[in-house]
Amino acid sequence: MALDGVRALVFDTFGTVVDWYGGLAREAGPFLARHGKPSVDPGDFAYAWRKLEQPAMEEVRSGRRPFERLDVLHREILDAAVAEFGLDPARIPAAELEALNLAWHRLDPWPDSVLGLTRLKAGYIIAPLSNGNVIMLLDMAKRAGLPWDAILGAEVTRAYKPTRESYLRTTEILAMRPEEVCLVAAHTSDLAAARDCGLKTVFVRRPLEYGPNRSGPPQPSQDWELSVDGLVELAAALGL
Amino acid sequence: MALDGVRALVFDTFGTVVDWYGGLAREAGPFLARHGKPSVDPGDFAYAWRKLEQPAMEEVRSGRRPFERLDVLHREILDAAVAEFGLDPARIPAAELEALNLAWHRLDPWPDSVLGLTRLKAGYIIAPLSNGNVIMLLDMAKRAGLPWDAILGAEVTRAYKPTRESYLRTTEILAMRPEEVCLVAAHTSDLAAARDCGLKTVFVRRPLEYGPNRSGPPQPSQDWELSVDGLVELAAALGL
Repeated sequence: MALDGVRALVFDTFGTVVDWYGGLAREAGPFLARHGKPSVDPGDFAYAWRKLEQPAMEEVRSGRRPFERLDVLHREILDAAVAEFGLDPARIPAAELEALNLAWHRLDPWPDSVLGLTRLKAGYIIAPLSNGNVIMLLDMAKRAGLPWDAILGAEVTRAYKPTRESYLRTTEILAMRPEEVCLVAAHTSDLAAARDCGLKTVFVRRPLEYGPNRSGPPQPSQDWELSVDGLVELAAALGL
Repeated sequence: MALDGVRALVFDTFGTVVDWYGGLAREAGPFLARHGKPSVDPGDFAYAWRKLEQPAMEEVRSGRRPFERLDVLHREILDAAVAEFGLDPARIPAAELEALNLAWHRLDPWPDSVLGLTRLKAGYIIAPLSNGNVIMLLDMAKRAGLPWDAILGAEVTRAYKPTRESYLRTTEILAMRPEEVCLVAAHTSDLAAARDCGLKTVFVRRPLEYGPNRSGPPQPSQDWELSVDGLVELAAALGL
Protein backbone atom coordinates (compact mmCIF):
# COMPACT_ATOMS: atom_id res chain seq x y z
CA MET A 1 0.00 0.00 0.00
CA ALA A 2 1.08 3.57 -0.66
CA LEU A 3 1.65 4.36 3.01
CA ASP A 4 3.24 1.10 4.16
CA GLY A 5 5.17 1.64 7.37
CA VAL A 6 3.45 4.94 8.19
CA ARG A 7 2.21 5.17 11.78
CA ALA A 8 1.23 8.84 12.09
CA LEU A 9 -0.65 11.16 9.75
CA VAL A 10 0.02 14.85 10.37
CA PHE A 11 -2.14 17.46 8.71
CA ASP A 12 -1.75 20.90 7.38
CA THR A 13 -4.86 22.54 8.75
CA PHE A 14 -5.75 25.89 7.09
CA GLY A 15 -7.12 24.98 3.69
CA THR A 16 -6.55 21.25 4.09
CA VAL A 17 -8.82 20.43 7.03
CA VAL A 18 -10.70 23.70 7.58
CA ASP A 19 -11.99 26.47 5.32
CA TRP A 20 -10.15 29.64 6.35
CA TYR A 21 -11.58 31.66 3.47
CA GLY A 22 -15.24 31.01 4.28
CA GLY A 23 -14.74 31.27 8.02
CA LEU A 24 -12.88 34.56 7.96
CA ALA A 25 -15.27 36.04 5.39
CA ARG A 26 -18.27 35.02 7.53
CA GLU A 27 -16.98 37.08 10.45
CA ALA A 28 -15.37 39.89 8.44
CA GLY A 29 -18.64 40.74 6.66
CA PRO A 30 -20.53 42.13 9.69
CA PHE A 31 -17.32 43.76 10.96
CA LEU A 32 -16.78 45.64 7.69
CA ALA A 33 -20.41 46.70 7.47
CA ARG A 34 -20.32 47.99 11.05
CA HIS A 35 -17.33 50.15 10.21
CA GLY A 36 -18.78 51.76 7.09
CA LYS A 37 -17.41 49.37 4.48
CA PRO A 38 -20.46 47.31 3.50
CA SER A 39 -19.38 47.16 -0.13
CA VAL A 40 -16.05 45.46 0.55
CA ASP A 41 -16.17 41.77 -0.41
CA PRO A 42 -15.44 39.97 2.89
CA GLY A 43 -13.69 37.27 0.85
CA ASP A 44 -11.24 39.89 -0.42
CA PHE A 45 -10.62 40.90 3.17
CA ALA A 46 -10.04 37.26 4.18
CA TYR A 47 -7.62 36.83 1.28
CA ALA A 48 -5.70 40.01 2.15
CA TRP A 49 -5.38 39.03 5.82
CA ARG A 50 -4.22 35.53 5.00
CA LYS A 51 -1.70 36.86 2.49
CA LEU A 52 0.05 38.89 5.20
CA GLU A 53 0.76 35.70 7.18
CA GLN A 54 3.78 34.62 5.14
CA PRO A 55 5.85 37.82 5.54
CA ALA A 56 5.02 37.83 9.28
CA MET A 57 6.14 34.21 9.70
CA GLU A 58 9.21 34.90 7.57
CA GLU A 59 10.44 37.32 10.24
CA VAL A 60 10.52 34.36 12.63
CA ARG A 61 11.82 31.79 10.13
CA SER A 62 14.69 34.10 9.19
CA GLY A 63 15.70 34.52 12.83
CA ARG A 64 15.11 38.27 12.75
CA ARG A 65 12.44 37.80 15.41
CA PRO A 66 12.18 35.23 18.22
CA PHE A 67 9.38 32.68 17.93
CA GLU A 68 5.96 34.22 18.44
CA ARG A 69 2.74 32.26 18.12
CA LEU A 70 0.40 32.72 15.20
CA ASP A 71 -2.43 34.30 17.23
CA VAL A 72 -0.08 37.20 17.97
CA LEU A 73 1.08 37.52 14.36
CA HIS A 74 -2.54 37.44 13.14
CA ARG A 75 -3.46 40.24 15.49
CA GLU A 76 -0.54 42.37 14.28
CA ILE A 77 -1.26 41.88 10.59
CA LEU A 78 -4.97 42.44 11.16
CA ASP A 79 -4.12 46.13 11.62
CA ALA A 80 -2.46 46.13 8.20
CA ALA A 81 -5.35 44.24 6.59
CA VAL A 82 -7.87 46.68 8.02
CA ALA A 83 -5.78 49.61 6.75
CA GLU A 84 -5.67 48.09 3.23
CA PHE A 85 -9.41 48.58 3.07
CA GLY A 86 -9.30 52.19 4.17
CA LEU A 87 -9.98 51.79 7.90
CA ASP A 88 -7.81 53.19 10.68
CA PRO A 89 -7.19 50.35 13.15
CA ALA A 90 -6.42 52.86 15.92
CA ARG A 91 -10.04 54.07 15.72
CA ILE A 92 -11.55 50.58 16.11
CA PRO A 93 -12.07 49.35 19.68
CA ALA A 94 -9.32 46.89 20.61
CA ALA A 95 -11.89 44.38 21.86
CA GLU A 96 -13.50 44.27 18.41
CA LEU A 97 -10.21 43.56 16.69
CA GLU A 98 -9.41 40.92 19.28
CA ALA A 99 -12.81 39.27 18.71
CA LEU A 100 -12.29 39.28 14.94
CA ASN A 101 -8.82 37.81 15.44
CA LEU A 102 -10.44 34.82 17.14
CA ALA A 103 -12.34 34.05 13.92
CA TRP A 104 -9.33 31.82 13.19
CA HIS A 105 -10.40 29.68 16.18
CA ARG A 106 -13.88 29.25 14.69
CA LEU A 107 -13.14 28.03 11.17
CA ASP A 108 -15.43 25.31 9.88
CA PRO A 109 -14.05 22.01 8.63
CA TRP A 110 -14.59 20.92 5.04
CA PRO A 111 -17.61 18.59 4.85
CA ASP A 112 -15.44 15.45 4.69
CA SER A 113 -12.97 16.36 7.46
CA VAL A 114 -14.65 15.10 10.63
CA LEU A 115 -15.78 11.79 9.15
CA GLY A 116 -12.48 11.27 7.37
CA LEU A 117 -10.38 12.00 10.47
CA THR A 118 -12.60 9.82 12.63
CA ARG A 119 -11.97 6.87 10.29
CA LEU A 120 -8.26 7.62 9.94
CA LYS A 121 -7.89 7.77 13.73
CA ALA A 122 -8.77 4.07 13.91
CA GLY A 123 -5.59 3.17 12.04
CA TYR A 124 -3.16 5.99 12.65
CA ILE A 125 -2.09 8.62 15.12
CA ILE A 126 -3.60 11.82 13.76
CA ALA A 127 -2.48 15.34 14.66
CA PRO A 128 -2.30 18.74 13.03
CA LEU A 129 1.14 19.84 11.91
CA SER A 130 0.05 23.41 11.42
CA ASN A 131 1.54 26.83 11.76
CA GLY A 132 -1.41 27.59 14.03
CA ASN A 133 -0.78 27.66 17.77
CA VAL A 134 -2.13 25.16 20.29
CA ILE A 135 -5.16 27.02 21.65
CA MET A 136 -6.19 28.11 18.13
CA LEU A 137 -6.19 24.51 16.91
CA LEU A 138 -7.70 23.23 20.13
CA ASP A 139 -10.62 25.70 20.10
CA MET A 140 -11.21 24.88 16.44
CA ALA A 141 -11.17 21.13 17.09
CA LYS A 142 -13.48 21.34 20.08
CA ARG A 143 -16.01 23.50 18.24
CA ALA A 144 -15.96 21.37 15.09
CA GLY A 145 -15.43 17.90 16.54
CA LEU A 146 -12.04 17.26 14.94
CA PRO A 147 -10.85 14.15 16.84
CA TRP A 148 -7.10 14.83 17.02
CA ASP A 149 -4.93 12.53 19.14
CA ALA A 150 -2.68 15.48 19.98
CA ILE A 151 -2.11 19.06 18.89
CA LEU A 152 1.28 19.44 17.28
CA GLY A 153 2.69 22.18 15.07
CA ALA A 154 4.67 25.39 15.18
CA GLU A 155 4.09 26.29 18.82
CA VAL A 156 5.28 22.87 19.99
CA THR A 157 8.35 22.77 17.73
CA ARG A 158 8.86 26.55 17.94
CA ALA A 159 9.50 26.54 14.19
CA TYR A 160 7.23 27.58 11.34
CA LYS A 161 6.74 25.44 8.25
CA PRO A 162 8.37 24.95 5.84
CA THR A 163 11.61 24.96 7.84
CA ARG A 164 13.24 21.57 8.29
CA GLU A 165 12.94 21.92 12.07
CA SER A 166 9.16 22.12 11.84
CA TYR A 167 8.99 18.63 10.32
CA LEU A 168 11.95 16.95 12.00
CA ARG A 169 11.17 18.11 15.52
CA THR A 170 7.66 16.78 14.99
CA THR A 171 8.93 13.34 14.00
CA GLU A 172 11.27 13.44 16.99
CA ILE A 173 8.39 14.22 19.37
CA LEU A 174 6.50 11.30 17.84
CA ALA A 175 9.63 9.14 18.40
CA MET A 176 9.35 7.99 14.80
CA ARG A 177 11.62 7.90 11.80
CA PRO A 178 10.61 10.50 9.18
CA GLU A 179 9.30 7.81 6.82
CA GLU A 180 6.89 6.61 9.52
CA VAL A 181 5.14 9.99 9.40
CA CYS A 182 3.04 11.27 6.49
CA LEU A 183 2.10 14.89 5.88
CA VAL A 184 -1.37 15.43 4.44
CA ALA A 185 -1.70 18.85 2.83
CA ALA A 186 -3.39 20.86 0.11
CA HIS A 187 -0.21 22.84 -0.61
CA THR A 188 2.57 21.27 -2.62
CA SER A 189 5.26 23.59 -1.22
CA ASP A 190 4.51 22.14 2.23
CA LEU A 191 4.58 18.58 0.86
CA ALA A 192 7.83 19.15 -1.02
CA ALA A 193 9.54 20.45 2.13
CA ALA A 194 8.25 17.52 4.17
CA ARG A 195 9.44 15.07 1.52
CA ASP A 196 12.88 16.67 1.60
CA CYS A 197 12.97 15.71 5.28
CA GLY A 198 12.00 12.11 4.52
CA LEU A 199 8.30 12.23 5.40
CA LYS A 200 5.67 10.55 3.24
CA THR A 201 3.19 12.82 1.49
CA VAL A 202 -0.50 12.92 0.58
CA PHE A 203 -1.89 15.73 -1.55
CA VAL A 204 -5.49 16.80 -0.97
CA ARG A 205 -7.15 18.79 -3.74
CA ARG A 206 -9.11 21.69 -2.25
CA PRO A 207 -10.24 23.74 -5.25
CA LEU A 208 -12.44 25.96 -3.08
CA GLU A 209 -9.68 26.97 -0.65
CA TYR A 210 -9.65 30.53 -2.01
CA GLY A 211 -13.39 30.76 -2.42
CA PRO A 212 -15.57 30.06 -5.45
CA ASN A 213 -14.24 32.93 -7.59
CA ARG A 214 -10.50 32.87 -7.01
CA SER A 215 -8.01 30.14 -7.79
CA GLY A 216 -5.17 29.73 -5.35
CA PRO A 217 -1.47 29.70 -6.15
CA PRO A 218 -0.42 26.95 -8.59
CA GLN A 219 0.27 23.55 -7.00
CA PRO A 220 3.05 21.95 -9.05
CA SER A 221 2.66 18.20 -9.07
CA GLN A 222 5.08 15.55 -7.92
CA ASP A 223 4.43 11.85 -7.52
CA TRP A 224 3.04 12.18 -4.02
CA GLU A 225 2.35 8.84 -2.34
CA LEU A 226 -1.37 9.60 -2.80
CA SER A 227 -3.52 12.39 -4.20
CA VAL A 228 -7.13 12.57 -3.04
CA ASP A 229 -10.16 14.83 -3.12
CA GLY A 230 -10.80 14.69 0.61
CA LEU A 231 -10.21 12.85 3.88
CA VAL A 232 -12.99 10.29 3.49
CA GLU A 233 -11.42 9.30 0.19
CA LEU A 234 -8.05 9.08 1.95
CA ALA A 235 -9.51 6.81 4.63
CA ALA A 236 -11.01 4.56 1.97
CA ALA A 237 -7.69 4.44 0.11
CA LEU A 238 -6.07 3.26 3.34
CA GLY A 239 -8.72 0.61 3.95
CA LEU A 240 -10.41 2.46 6.81
CA MET B 1 -19.39 26.83 42.35
CA ALA B 2 -15.90 25.85 43.45
CA LEU B 3 -14.38 26.24 40.01
CA ASP B 4 -16.16 29.40 38.83
CA GLY B 5 -14.23 31.01 36.02
CA VAL B 6 -12.19 27.91 35.23
CA ARG B 7 -12.08 27.04 31.52
CA ALA B 8 -9.42 24.32 31.38
CA LEU B 9 -8.76 21.31 33.59
CA VAL B 10 -5.21 20.00 33.39
CA PHE B 11 -4.36 16.66 34.92
CA ASP B 12 -1.45 15.06 36.59
CA THR B 13 -1.43 11.68 34.90
CA PHE B 14 0.70 9.04 36.68
CA GLY B 15 -1.29 8.04 39.75
CA THR B 16 -4.08 10.53 39.12
CA VAL B 17 -5.51 9.27 35.80
CA VAL B 18 -3.60 6.02 35.25
CA ASP B 19 -2.26 3.28 37.51
CA TRP B 20 1.51 3.27 37.03
CA TYR B 21 2.05 0.74 39.82
CA GLY B 22 -0.21 -1.93 38.41
CA GLY B 23 0.83 -1.31 34.82
CA LEU B 24 4.56 -1.48 35.45
CA ALA B 25 4.19 -4.51 37.74
CA ARG B 26 2.14 -6.35 35.09
CA GLU B 27 4.98 -6.06 32.57
CA ALA B 28 7.87 -6.34 35.02
CA GLY B 29 6.66 -9.73 36.34
CA PRO B 30 7.34 -11.78 33.19
CA PHE B 31 10.55 -9.81 32.57
CA LEU B 32 11.92 -10.61 36.03
CA ALA B 33 10.92 -14.27 35.77
CA ARG B 34 12.61 -14.56 32.37
CA HIS B 35 15.83 -13.25 33.85
CA GLY B 36 15.98 -15.59 36.82
CA LYS B 37 14.25 -13.39 39.39
CA PRO B 38 10.82 -14.99 39.72
CA SER B 39 10.71 -14.31 43.45
CA VAL B 40 11.05 -10.53 43.15
CA ASP B 41 7.72 -8.78 43.78
CA PRO B 42 7.06 -6.95 40.50
CA GLY B 43 5.36 -4.22 42.53
CA ASP B 44 8.63 -3.65 44.39
CA PHE B 45 10.34 -3.32 41.04
CA ALA B 46 7.72 -0.82 39.84
CA TYR B 47 8.13 1.20 43.00
CA ALA B 48 11.95 1.23 42.72
CA TRP B 49 11.83 2.33 39.08
CA ARG B 50 9.33 5.09 39.78
CA LYS B 51 11.37 6.30 42.75
CA LEU B 52 14.38 6.97 40.51
CA GLU B 53 12.36 9.41 38.41
CA GLN B 54 12.65 12.35 40.79
CA PRO B 55 16.45 12.46 40.98
CA ALA B 56 16.63 12.09 37.19
CA MET B 57 14.20 14.98 36.65
CA GLU B 58 16.01 17.02 39.27
CA GLU B 59 19.09 17.04 37.04
CA VAL B 60 16.99 18.86 34.44
CA ARG B 61 15.11 21.09 36.89
CA SER B 62 18.38 22.22 38.45
CA GLY B 63 19.78 23.18 35.05
CA ARG B 64 22.65 20.71 35.37
CA ARG B 65 21.31 18.93 32.30
CA PRO B 66 19.42 20.29 29.26
CA PHE B 67 15.81 19.24 28.90
CA GLU B 68 15.43 15.57 28.02
CA ARG B 69 12.08 13.84 27.68
CA LEU B 70 10.85 11.35 30.22
CA ASP B 71 11.06 8.31 27.93
CA VAL B 72 14.82 8.85 27.79
CA LEU B 73 15.13 9.35 31.55
CA HIS B 74 13.04 6.23 32.19
CA ARG B 75 15.31 4.17 29.96
CA GLU B 76 18.41 5.43 31.77
CA ILE B 77 17.06 4.75 35.26
CA LEU B 78 15.73 1.37 34.18
CA ASP B 79 19.35 0.20 34.17
CA ALA B 80 19.68 1.29 37.78
CA ALA B 81 16.37 -0.30 38.75
CA VAL B 82 17.38 -3.60 37.17
CA ALA B 83 20.71 -3.47 38.98
CA GLU B 84 18.98 -2.88 42.34
CA PHE B 85 17.45 -6.33 41.97
CA GLY B 86 20.73 -8.04 41.20
CA LEU B 87 20.62 -8.07 37.39
CA ASP B 88 23.32 -6.72 35.09
CA PRO B 89 21.59 -4.48 32.52
CA ALA B 90 24.53 -4.90 30.12
CA ARG B 91 23.71 -8.62 29.86
CA ILE B 92 20.05 -8.04 28.98
CA PRO B 93 19.26 -7.52 25.27
CA ALA B 94 18.73 -3.82 24.57
CA ALA B 95 15.47 -4.58 22.73
CA GLU B 96 14.05 -6.18 25.88
CA LEU B 97 14.86 -3.18 28.02
CA GLU B 98 13.41 -0.88 25.37
CA ALA B 99 10.22 -2.95 25.28
CA LEU B 100 9.90 -2.84 29.07
CA ASN B 101 10.50 0.92 28.98
CA LEU B 102 7.40 1.26 26.82
CA ALA B 103 5.30 -0.23 29.63
CA TRP B 104 4.83 3.43 30.63
CA HIS B 105 2.93 3.89 27.34
CA ARG B 106 0.56 1.04 28.22
CA LEU B 107 -0.63 2.00 31.70
CA ASP B 108 -4.30 1.38 32.40
CA PRO B 109 -6.58 4.17 33.56
CA TRP B 110 -8.31 3.97 36.92
CA PRO B 111 -11.86 2.61 36.45
CA ASP B 112 -13.44 6.09 36.68
CA SER B 113 -10.99 7.94 34.41
CA VAL B 114 -12.44 7.47 30.92
CA LEU B 115 -16.04 8.11 31.92
CA GLY B 116 -15.07 11.03 34.14
CA LEU B 117 -12.91 12.69 31.48
CA THR B 118 -15.57 12.14 28.82
CA ARG B 119 -18.08 14.02 30.98
CA LEU B 120 -15.62 16.75 31.95
CA LYS B 121 -14.74 17.30 28.29
CA ALA B 122 -18.28 18.51 27.65
CA GLY B 123 -17.70 21.52 29.91
CA TYR B 124 -13.98 22.16 29.92
CA ILE B 125 -10.84 21.90 27.87
CA ILE B 126 -9.11 18.80 29.25
CA ALA B 127 -5.42 17.99 28.84
CA PRO B 128 -2.69 16.21 30.75
CA LEU B 129 -0.18 18.45 32.49
CA SER B 130 2.21 15.63 33.10
CA ASN B 131 5.93 15.12 33.28
CA GLY B 132 5.41 12.41 30.66
CA ASN B 133 6.34 13.25 27.08
CA VAL B 134 3.93 13.63 24.18
CA ILE B 135 4.18 10.19 22.53
CA MET B 136 4.03 8.45 25.93
CA LEU B 137 0.80 10.24 26.84
CA LEU B 138 -0.56 9.91 23.31
CA ASP B 139 0.03 6.14 23.11
CA MET B 140 -1.51 5.76 26.55
CA ALA B 141 -4.57 7.81 25.59
CA LYS B 142 -5.11 6.00 22.32
CA ARG B 143 -4.86 2.57 23.93
CA ALA B 144 -7.11 3.44 26.86
CA GLY B 145 -9.55 5.85 25.23
CA LEU B 146 -8.61 8.91 27.27
CA PRO B 147 -10.36 11.70 25.31
CA TRP B 148 -7.84 14.54 25.76
CA ASP B 149 -8.36 17.77 23.81
CA ALA B 150 -4.59 18.20 23.57
CA ILE B 151 -1.42 16.72 25.04
CA LEU B 152 0.37 19.28 27.19
CA GLY B 153 3.07 18.82 29.79
CA ALA B 154 6.81 18.83 30.28
CA GLU B 155 7.85 18.17 26.67
CA VAL B 156 5.73 21.07 25.42
CA THR B 157 6.86 23.53 28.11
CA ARG B 158 10.35 22.00 28.29
CA ALA B 159 10.08 22.22 32.08
CA TYR B 160 9.38 19.50 34.64
CA LYS B 161 6.85 19.96 37.41
CA PRO B 162 6.88 21.36 39.99
CA THR B 163 8.85 24.29 38.52
CA ARG B 164 6.88 27.49 38.06
CA GLU B 165 7.60 27.38 34.31
CA SER B 166 5.83 24.05 33.97
CA TYR B 167 2.55 25.61 35.15
CA LEU B 168 2.88 29.14 33.80
CA ARG B 169 4.02 28.17 30.31
CA THR B 170 1.02 25.85 30.18
CA THR B 171 -1.40 28.65 31.06
CA GLU B 172 0.33 30.84 28.47
CA ILE B 173 -0.10 28.20 25.75
CA LEU B 174 -3.77 28.00 26.73
CA ALA B 175 -3.93 31.83 26.49
CA MET B 176 -5.59 31.88 29.90
CA ARG B 177 -4.96 33.60 33.18
CA PRO B 178 -3.68 31.13 35.82
CA GLU B 179 -6.99 31.25 37.72
CA GLU B 180 -8.81 30.06 34.59
CA VAL B 181 -6.86 26.80 34.74
CA CYS B 182 -7.29 24.10 37.38
CA LEU B 183 -4.80 21.34 38.13
CA VAL B 184 -6.34 18.00 39.08
CA ALA B 185 -3.84 15.79 40.90
CA ALA B 186 -3.42 13.06 43.48
CA HIS B 187 -0.24 14.65 44.85
CA THR B 188 -0.46 17.65 47.11
CA SER B 189 3.08 18.83 46.35
CA ASP B 190 2.01 19.26 42.71
CA LEU B 191 -1.17 21.07 43.78
CA ALA B 192 0.66 23.37 46.17
CA ALA B 193 3.12 24.40 43.46
CA ALA B 194 0.28 25.03 40.99
CA ARG B 195 -1.57 27.07 43.57
CA ASP B 196 1.54 29.17 44.15
CA CYS B 197 1.33 30.06 40.45
CA GLY B 198 -2.33 31.06 40.76
CA LEU B 199 -3.98 27.94 39.34
CA LYS B 200 -7.07 26.43 40.91
CA THR B 201 -6.68 22.98 42.46
CA VAL B 202 -8.61 19.71 42.79
CA PHE B 203 -7.25 16.88 44.91
CA VAL B 204 -8.10 13.31 43.88
CA ARG B 205 -7.67 10.63 46.52
CA ARG B 206 -5.98 7.58 45.00
CA PRO B 207 -5.29 5.28 47.95
CA LEU B 208 -4.18 2.43 45.67
CA GLU B 209 -1.56 4.45 43.77
CA TYR B 210 1.27 2.49 45.42
CA GLY B 211 -0.52 -0.84 45.28
CA PRO B 212 -2.67 -2.57 47.84
CA ASN B 213 0.10 -3.13 50.40
CA ARG B 214 2.03 0.11 50.43
CA SER B 215 0.88 3.57 51.34
CA GLY B 216 2.36 6.40 49.35
CA PRO B 217 4.08 9.49 50.71
CA PRO B 218 1.92 11.62 53.03
CA GLN B 219 -0.37 14.12 51.28
CA PRO B 220 -0.64 17.13 53.60
CA SER B 221 -4.02 18.76 53.24
CA GLN B 222 -4.84 22.32 52.25
CA ASP B 223 -8.24 23.75 51.44
CA TRP B 224 -8.14 22.70 47.80
CA GLU B 225 -11.05 24.01 45.76
CA LEU B 226 -12.38 20.44 45.71
CA SER B 227 -11.33 17.03 46.99
CA VAL B 228 -12.82 13.98 45.32
CA ASP B 229 -12.45 10.20 45.12
CA GLY B 230 -12.34 10.07 41.33
CA LEU B 231 -13.10 11.80 38.07
CA VAL B 232 -16.74 10.76 37.79
CA GLU B 233 -17.28 12.33 41.20
CA LEU B 234 -15.49 15.46 39.96
CA ALA B 235 -17.75 15.65 36.91
CA ALA B 236 -20.82 15.33 39.12
CA ALA B 237 -19.51 18.05 41.44
CA LEU B 238 -19.20 20.32 38.41
CA GLY B 239 -22.70 19.51 37.19
CA LEU B 240 -21.56 17.34 34.27
